[in-house]
Amino acid sequence: MAFLSLSSFYPQFHTPPLLSFPSPTPTISKPTIFNTKSLFLNSNTTTSLKCLPTPLELASHCVEEEEQLLHHVWRKIHGSDDWTGLLDPMNPLLRSEIIRYGEFAQACYDAFDFDPHSKYCGTCKYSGNHFFDRLHMPAAGHGYEISRYLYATSNINLPNFFQKKRLRNVWSTHANWMGYIAFATDPLEIARLGRRDIVIAWRGTVTYLEWIHDLKDILTPVYFGDDPSIKVESGFLDLYTMKEHRCNYCSFSAREQVLADIKRLVERFSGEELSITVTGHSLGAALALLSAYDIAEMGLNIREDGEMIPVTVFSFSGPRVGNLRFKLRCEELGVKVLRVINVHDRVPSVPGIIANEKFQYQRVVEEVMWFPWSYAHVGVELALDHRESPFLKESGDVRCVHNLEAHLHLVDGYQGKGRGFESAGGRDVALVNKSCDFLREELGVPPRWWQDENKGMVRGEDGRWVVPERPRVEAHPPDTAHHLDKVLKGGRPPRLESR
Amino acid sequence: MAFLSLSSFYPQFHTPPLLSFPSPTPTISKPTIFNTKSLFLNSNTTTSLKCLPTPLELASHCVEEEEQLLHHVWRKIHGSDDWTGLLDPMNPLLRSEIIRYGEFAQACYDAFDFDPHSKYCGTCKYSGNHFFDRLHMPAAGHGYEISRYLYATSNINLPNFFQKKRLRNVWSTHANWMGYIAFATDPLEIARLGRRDIVIAWRGTVTYLEWIHDLKDILTPVYFGDDPSIKVESGFLDLYTMKEHRCNYCSFSAREQVLADIKRLVERFSGEELSITVTGHSLGAALALLSAYDIAEMGLNIREDGEMIPVTVFSFSGPRVGNLRFKLRCEELGVKVLRVINVHDRVPSVPGIIANEKFQYQRVVEEVMWFPWSYAHVGVELALDHRESPFLKESGDVRCVHNLEAHLHLVDGYQGKGRGFESAGGRDVALVNKSCDFLREELGVPPRWWQDENKGMVRGEDGRWVVPERPRVEAHPPDTAHHLDKVLKGGRPPRLESR
Repeated sequence: MAFLSLSSFYPQFHTPPLLSFPSPTPTISKPTIFNTKSLFLNSNTTTSLKCLPTPLELASHCVEEEEQLLHHVWRKIHGSDDWTGLLDPMNPLLRSEIIRYGEFAQACYDAFDFDPHSKYCGTCKYSGNHFFDRLHMPAAGHGYEISRYLYATSNINLPNFFQKKRLRNVWSTHANWMGYIAFATDPLEIARLGRRDIVIAWRGTVTYLEWIHDLKDILTPVYFGDDPSIKVESGFLDLYTMKEHRCNYCSFSAREQVLADIKRLVERFSGEELSITVTGHSLGAALALLSAYDIAEMGLNIREDGEMIPVTVFSFSGPRVGNLRFKLRCEELGVKVLRVINVHDRVPSVPGIIANEKFQYQRVVEEVMWFPWSYAHVGVELALDHRESPFLKESGDVRCVHNLEAHLHLVDGYQGKGRGFESAGGRDVALVNKSCDFLREELGVPPRWWQDENKGMVRGEDGRWVVPERPRVEAHPPDTAHHLDKVLKGGRPPRLESR
Repeated sequence: MAFLSLSSFYPQFHTPPLLSFPSPTPTISKPTIFNTKSLFLNSNTTTSLKCLPTPLELASHCVEEEEQLLHHVWRKIHGSDDWTGLLDPMNPLLRSEIIRYGEFAQACYDAFDFDPHSKYCGTCKYSGNHFFDRLHMPAAGHGYEISRYLYATSNINLPNFFQKKRLRNVWSTHANWMGYIAFATDPLEIARLGRRDIVIAWRGTVTYLEWIHDLKDILTPVYFGDDPSIKVESGFLDLYTMKEHRCNYCSFSAREQVLADIKRLVERFSGEELSITVTGHSLGAALALLSAYDIAEMGLNIREDGEMIPVTVFSFSGPRVGNLRFKLRCEELGVKVLRVINVHDRVPSVPGIIANEKFQYQRVVEEVMWFPWSYAHVGVELALDHRESPFLKESGDVRCVHNLEAHLHLVDGYQGKGRGFESAGGRDVALVNKSCDFLREELGVPPRWWQDENKGMVRGEDGRWVVPERPRVEAHPPDTAHHLDKVLKGGRPPRLESR
């Protein structure tokens, strides 16, 4: 049996890394490590998959562990020490939090109407109050509620990012649903987390990677602050800052939507401990970094008493966003970024193939030569390799290699550099194939299985099949302009429309 | 607006044809004819579609009409007069019955697991007692129940007919679900129909038309009776008669399954008026004709008192099946066949392109020259043209043109030769796109929308996504051998395995 050779990946049973936090409750139960080898010893893979603990079993196991810990150590998990000592060996709590935030980003795909034949193409399929319920996320969303949805105009120079709508009578010719802002609302969850967490999740695209070719690789000054040398790729900046006055959903730019809502939430929860966590995959990861930087640059995370609310980005397969000055400014502002990548994915290598953070003289090139194609990644990298997972086909195509669920699977199995793949969290491997064909066939999981019954067509009481009308979602909370005004008046005058 | 020119198809509003039956209740309400022109005058097609009466409204309308009629005239509807005078202009009752039987055939597609990645590939997705409920058929199945499922072995020379299973651990490597036998069970439906109807429905294939190339075009003696000059295409005969002793589902051939069950049902309902209606699409139409002939040839439709139970085939896009002698023998036996075709579909022209019923000297060629490639269609043809429908794209690809739902849509709009398309029955046009992309885009119906939620994956109580186990369906009713034995002993000795 070919799979027996996989045992060569696991020369020994790894002793699970003990948590190294200075925890007030230092007795930590040993995390269960599941040996994936056994999966392939039995030809009936469905049965053998059941040998793994279920998410519920794991959840109860993890809850126990996390309740002792997360509310104490969440600042470290959010990068207060730049994840020093947590990545190799991989810290189990950090692992589960990376996965949880990755699921918030994955929710943007699972809820998005990609179908170019749908008149709702470009929208979110669910209304905000049912959002997390409909998505069956193993970890994300429990105890959170949606604060608002985020929209961007498609009238920008990233034509391949937006779905081509086939119909004329669509909900909007300009707007696209780009993600959401949510916040922890359940007291138990807030207690577990150790603070009230605010999440911003940005949608990327799994289907079309062609948007990479649209990147003009031209850096443009951001002007969120007053330093003209801070620059980002112009396509990302456009997506984040452009608005479209003819369209209700884009009458505020994505940027304005974020700033107004963060302002509102930080004020609303003024007496509470807070965190702002921004996440996204692919192009969504670029928006995550840009918006996190923006929030910090605008000082929205600085409270009246001067206390700083941590702003952390969990980014998945993200491209480079800005230049070296941008990176340094993010660091100055205390924006913490953990970048999860698959080493075989091309997206994190663009833009900036010519000059990037690996180039010794980047600062000279940028500052002296004003070289406009020099990019720098921000933050700490967690580099994964899909070839380490015995569940995945070795040669996934570019879309598989870039797929977010595949990244979450790899995080789940990551123990540290050269420590092999062991599914410590027991995350359901079937999720990998939601929207790609990356799992080995022996596992019997259909490829691209995440689909709506009858493409959303339903048989009405009159017996006819129709695409049901979706309730019109409010474009913006009514107090958006009000809070935006406060942002404008507070501190430095922001340049809200960058160009 | 381009669609205004469609009005040229409809020079006048057609006076609906009055029913010409010598009915005991001659006051017939005028069937409503819906003018499809209006559909395209409004750019919001979804709204305008709603102007059509709903199937429920129509059902109540039709029920009224049919209750007066169908139980009196069902023998004519079933071809006792070879449909003379019922096809041009199109008789509304016949139209609704053709559609109803077409839906019985369509059910074989809608319920079939085509997914080569499924371990249940080749099976019916639903168990018999939920079959019709799960399919939401507008007309078929109400008041019927499944008597048995039909299976055939894939170990025959029609390799492109069967789905290629990608997995090794599949439910059966040999068997394929081929359709079902059902019978009317609801007293109201039996009263409406004027008899207890027994339906045999055969599955064809919508996905792969490649099986046409597998037809060897070789005629083989059937030997269901004792005349060796009655011949049919050998691939069809194999599919119908071959069995596979290693496989529980194919331990009886499809033929034996049919004969035993018809014997059982005719005995069970010995005191009642009965009809045997056989239907199928594409290759399923070939099996429909072959099995109908078989039942009649075996005398299963002849009661002890000599009364003949009508055997009628409603066939859709069927190929030719046998030679001229086969056709003549079907006629001798009183098997009535209504063949519904789309004139742009290639399947009804095979096999027998060289010599067929249109060839004046076919009898000479067959009987004198023993020419083995001479085929004859059986029965009465109802030729439709998809270009008549303003709802369909003019140049549908070969699969659209062959599609069964598209045929039912055309039947619904058919008024008679050169009488234009008017949706008299108001059948839901959205059904056309169930498994093809044939509707004009303006209608806003997604192409190929008939699909299971998450490809049948469900999230178990433990949180994991799995393909749920399907209950093993009984391969054959326990008394199959018993009834088959009766068939063998009754009347002429049949040659059950033809070769």
